[in-house]
Amino acid sequence: MSIILQSLALDRWVEPSSGFVDIPSAVDGHVVARASSAGLDFVAMVRHAREVGGPALRKLTFHQRADRLRSLAAYVSERKERLYKLAGDTGATRRDNAIDIEGGLGTLSAYASRGRRELPDAAFVVEGDVEGLSKGGTFVGQHILSPLHGVAAHINAFNFPCWGLLEKFAPAFLAGVPVIAKPATATAYVTEALVRLMHESGSLPPGSLQLICGSTGNLLDLLGGQDVISFTGSIETSEKLRNHPNIARHSIRFVAERDSLNASLLGPDVEPSQPEFDLFVREIVREMIAKTGQKCTAIRRILVPRAQEAAAIAALKTALSAVKLGDPRTEDKVMGPLVSRAQRESVREQIAKLAGETEIVFGDPNHCEGAGIDTKAGAFIGPVLLRATDPMSARRVHDTEAFGPVATVLAYDNLDQAIELIARGEGSLVASLFTYDAKVAAAVVLGIAPFHGRVLIVDRDCAKESTGHGSPMPSLLHGGPGRAGGGEELGGMRAVYHYMQRTAVQASPGRLSSLTGSWLKGAPTPIAEVHPFKRNFDQLQVGDTIETASRPITLADIEHFAEFTGDNFYAHMDEAAAKANPFFPGRVAHGYLILAFAAGLFVDPAPGPLLANYGLDNLRFLKPVSPDDVIRVRLTVKQKSPARKPEYGEVRWDVEVVNQNNEPVARYDLLTMSARAA
Amino acid sequence: MSIILQSLALDRWVEPSSGFVDIPSAVDGHVVARASSAGLDFVAMVRHAREVGGPALRKLTFHQRADRLRSLAAYVSERKERLYKLAGDTGATRRDNAIDIEGGLGTLSAYASRGRRELPDAAFVVEGDVEGLSKGGTFVGQHILSPLHGVAAHINAFNFPCWGLLEKFAPAFLAGVPVIAKPATATAYVTEALVRLMHESGSLPPGSLQLICGSTGNLLDLLGGQDVISFTGSIETSEKLRNHPNIARHSIRFVAERDSLNASLLGPDVEPSQPEFDLFVREIVREMIAKTGQKCTAIRRILVPRAQEAAAIAALKTALSAVKLGDPRTEDKVMGPLVSRAQRESVREQIAKLAGETEIVFGDPNHCEGAGIDTKAGAFIGPVLLRATDPMSARRVHDTEAFGPVATVLAYDNLDQAIELIARGEGSLVASLFTYDAKVAAAVVLGIAPFHGRVLIVDRDCAKESTGHGSPMPSLLHGGPGRAGGGEELGGMRAVYHYMQRTAVQASPGRLSSLTGSWLKGAPTPIAEVHPFKRNFDQLQVGDTIETASRPITLADIEHFAEFTGDNFYAHMDEAAAKANPFFPGRVAHGYLILAFAAGLFVDPAPGPLLANYGLDNLRFLKPVSPDDVIRVRLTVKQKSPARKPEYGEVRWDVEVVNQNNEPVARYDLLTMSARAA
Repeated sequence: MSIILQSLALDRWVEPSSGFVDIPSAVDGHVVARASSAGLDFVAMVRHAREVGGPALRKLTFHQRADRLRSLAAYVSERKERLYKLAGDTGATRRDNAIDIEGGLGTLSAYASRGRRELPDAAFVVEGDVEGLSKGGTFVGQHILSPLHGVAAHINAFNFPCWGLLEKFAPAFLAGVPVIAKPATATAYVTEALVRLMHESGSLPPGSLQLICGSTGNLLDLLGGQDVISFTGSIETSEKLRNHPNIARHSIRFVAERDSLNASLLGPDVEPSQPEFDLFVREIVREMIAKTGQKCTAIRRILVPRAQEAAAIAALKTALSAVKLGDPRTEDKVMGPLVSRAQRESVREQIAKLAGETEIVFGDPNHCEGAGIDTKAGAFIGPVLLRATDPMSARRVHDTEAFGPVATVLAYDNLDQAIELIARGEGSLVASLFTYDAKVAAAVVLGIAPFHGRVLIVDRDCAKESTGHGSPMPSLLHGGPGRAGGGEELGGMRAVYHYMQRTAVQASPGRLSSLTGSWLKGAPTPIAEVHPFKRNFDQLQVGDTIETASRPITLADIEHFAEFTGDNFYAHMDEAAAKANPFFPGRVAHGYLILAFAAGLFVDPAPGPLLANYGLDNLRFLKPVSPDDVIRVRLTVKQKSPARKPEYGEVRWDVEVVNQNNEPVARYDLLTMSARAA
Repeated sequence: MSIILQSLALDRWVEPSSGFVDIPSAVDGHVVARASSAGLDFVAMVRHAREVGGPALRKLTFHQRADRLRSLAAYVSERKERLYKLAGDTGATRRDNAIDIEGGLGTLSAYASRGRRELPDAAFVVEGDVEGLSKGGTFVGQHILSPLHGVAAHINAFNFPCWGLLEKFAPAFLAGVPVIAKPATATAYVTEALVRLMHESGSLPPGSLQLICGSTGNLLDLLGGQDVISFTGSIETSEKLRNHPNIARHSIRFVAERDSLNASLLGPDVEPSQPEFDLFVREIVREMIAKTGQKCTAIRRILVPRAQEAAAIAALKTALSAVKLGDPRTEDKVMGPLVSRAQRESVREQIAKLAGETEIVFGDPNHCEGAGIDTKAGAFIGPVLLRATDPMSARRVHDTEAFGPVATVLAYDNLDQAIELIARGEGSLVASLFTYDAKVAAAVVLGIAPFHGRVLIVDRDCAKESTGHGSPMPSLLHGGPGRAGGGEELGGMRAVYHYMQRTAVQASPGRLSSLTGSWLKGAPTPIAEVHPFKRNFDQLQVGDTIETASRPITLADIEHFAEFTGDNFYAHMDEAAAKANPFFPGRVAHGYLILAFAAGLFVDPAPGPLLANYGLDNLRFLKPVSPDDVIRVRLTVKQKSPARKPEYGEVRWDVEVVNQNNEPVARYDLLTMSARAA
């Protein structure tokens, strides 16, 4: 019995009736599912995303969307066994599927947490500092990021049916942009099951996620300047999509993540006796066999110092010999088949293309065996290790991606040559370096960084906790320039901002402040009738200000403070030495004395809504305070944000301490916790 | 006598010998210059940029490149009259040319200053925080930005022959990427003169700037994944360029800034008696006539409340009647001609396209006059004001850019309609809003921000210092989504980063720290033999650490501090009240007391290389300090940066204050000035 895959359109599951494509099991070739997008109304889907999904998402704040992501992750997590079960037929072992399923859910959770922590509880993000645009300070600018009013079209690869959808979905959803996702047909039955769980969770606002099982039809014809296309797959498909005339016409954002001939480099400092040698061999083998080598981040080029080439190949051969093929549905400690026999044909073709400049040192692309499996009906292939016969003249090895358990050893003579060889990949997702030499690390990172989205340095100090060459992390950029597609995914909030428009807003400080909810210099500072520390979080208004009484700082104060604290720095204690210092006119007050006296001036002693001063940011001492200078303080509510607990909120105060001539002597942000209305 | 324009290729001026295009004067039609790129070796130029220019630029740090920009600006500034003189024939008045020439030089200077202030004196930029990737803290990640190893191909528009080149050149140069610039032929004689000045200044490293006067030939065929194309011009040329197959194949970064039907909106709250009404009328007229309306940021769509339509049109007509056409080479208070008669034909054609849905309420596209000018030989045209007869059904007015002194009035019935009309432009560079109502401002900004790169709110509070609807600022984003091209230029460092590759680096904290030159938690902290405050800036090493002696904080200390400073907050003074506070176990020490005692523990009193503590960042109180807790301090050199004066440098210290149980109670960055080696 094969499943008929449905698409999720306009928040309803739609079953196709014609145009089916059979999806075979990777393990035994039986038809697992059938897919077709025939009859889907793409025009209506895009309109639904724009007119229902976008507005529904934009009604929520970033925090509310983050909370939805959190619930989604929890709901799916409780039911994830359903996904593991289905995914056995994709050829992936349980460990492989953990990368996909746990990795995807982890990414959802990571965006839920980061959204709460790093984004405001608001409809847009304020980015960067206020920019002064005038001498008098009455005209300023600042950047905001707001969600695009379009749809995110996500076109995913077969190798990660869960993670692939979720790592693109989470940032778009958090940004406030609805998604139409189109998984690769070969494993779409796992994605369909995932989306069913997401849909039935009740956490998705209407129109925020639609799913196309089958082909994308005329989807790209319907997109415009507020839309985003994000693609993962082959360079050929990417080129075809990117050359769609709509993309140039409407400047549609196009994110691509595609072929990548990732390299791993054994440093010239590493000898077989060093731990980095074994770590290197272990990582190469792990990357060759995980997901049966079907990862865009897998290691394809293995660079070793010529002196270690033989030792490295020998060690790799030993380790690869231990790899067993098997049925991933029943056994976990095996390497499963490729996703399909068609994929196996493609891998064999790619290996054949490499034949002119490499020799096979391990494995056989055309034969394999394993206990209890059908190597004819299933898409099995064993690991294949190649060796470039003349690394400096080889060309195909830098542009031919055999998307399976296949990698090529290239020996290099010196570090410059190794860096040049890596750059010949013309842009990759990731490279890794195994070295314990700081100079080697610096030279390689600087040499190859422009060609990579991620560079990993492994040594004995971090290997135990290293997340590995092949693992994209939610907090770090995933993507690479050139051949790798030029896209950027993940990297924390960076991916969220790809779904938002950056806009510079120019206005008076008062107008800008009322827009962003953040007080800035030049905006009104109404003097509060009640001491702001006596007002609870909800009563406080951005801009509320108090100005304190004055207090002199005497020489006796300075001497007493020095004696009490033990801070006898000469600038406070020795007139002649202080005068010789380029920054001081003579003896001056301690910075911390100024802070302490300032607090003495503005603190309200009795219990009240102000609960604690939990920190201070951006303190700058602007002018020395000499004995008998008189200070006073202006304190203004700069920003209010929710705290972890609902009973109180975080208040950021702009504090300016001035002297008797009204010259600022210190400025800082004071951070307090204030109780909310009961 | 016409000038034969030369191209700057491989650091030599090359004179073409065939294939000339005549460039006529906008004012009187005489041939000003002749241009051709025939015979230029584009292959050699690209190779020169990559193999000579890139390496020469990357040998310099950001600060060194910023200093080069500073010298360039100074050198050209002293000789700028040469540019003003030539630019008269482009049709621009001296005031128009000031926008171009002073604007361009100002942009150079702004990037020089920002580069010094906001970028490190290093080869790459560290972006964002360290990301923890493991529980044990032995594996972390961080992003760096490093210059691409390619070439920046800049294809510029005719309207700003100086600013257009400089606003693209400055960020690329600062990033460390060599430029090949191709100005629009119509005004290339001004750009050629500018580049001559830049070249002869001696501030350009070899290969860092090349110039193509004439057509781009096969330049795009030669570009790859490390290159960047930045284009300003028409949507048609942009589409043609962007569809070049190399762009999809190599994921070439493509920045475009093109057609934009910018809107200006008179708020529904504004009546003719209010200052915002006059400000609006003045801005519209200024934008229509500056550069004879040939600015991609000019106002094309004028939105007014229906109730004010007649008054607005009447006021605009009065103001436009005062505009005089004249010879910009001799008179400044006039509107000059368009850049060429061909451009005038194009403007007339665009106006004709609008005829079906608009009426002309002021001006005549086909006739104009002015004292002492030849309106036949010159490309003169008077301002033309159109009015949409049925604004909600008009279509062409949102997609037809008449690139001259032409704009259309659209009346709206309510704010939602106005926002919808603005969005119909499908993406613009800028919109402006004239209102004195906070709610109108908020609704409009949130409604239109996703469609704009810049939004300007003008009112009585900022008008005097407003930089105007049409002026891109170096500190603010220039670019817009959709029809406007989807590119981002300027915006401070954002434009610099477009020429750099973002790379996530994963490693142990020690390895990452040695790469970035910034100490981070988990990296080695060698205990210094000499107190670090006794070591000068050059002797200090990132990671150098001292651990201080311990000191108890007694109840007497707390009470004394309260009395001395006046900070009698109940959490320090009243055990019962303190206990009732959710953050405190009972009476606790003042935060500033902890800071002061910490300083007392680590300060070295005698004169030495440490000159001053000028501030403090990211202070967080992590755990309350109760009476009789004992504190001590760990102080580690976190980062070193050059200061404004060469005699000292800025040192950032990581400070951790711990209690008797080794629990951190406070953490902060301490900022000091330290003298350099004599």
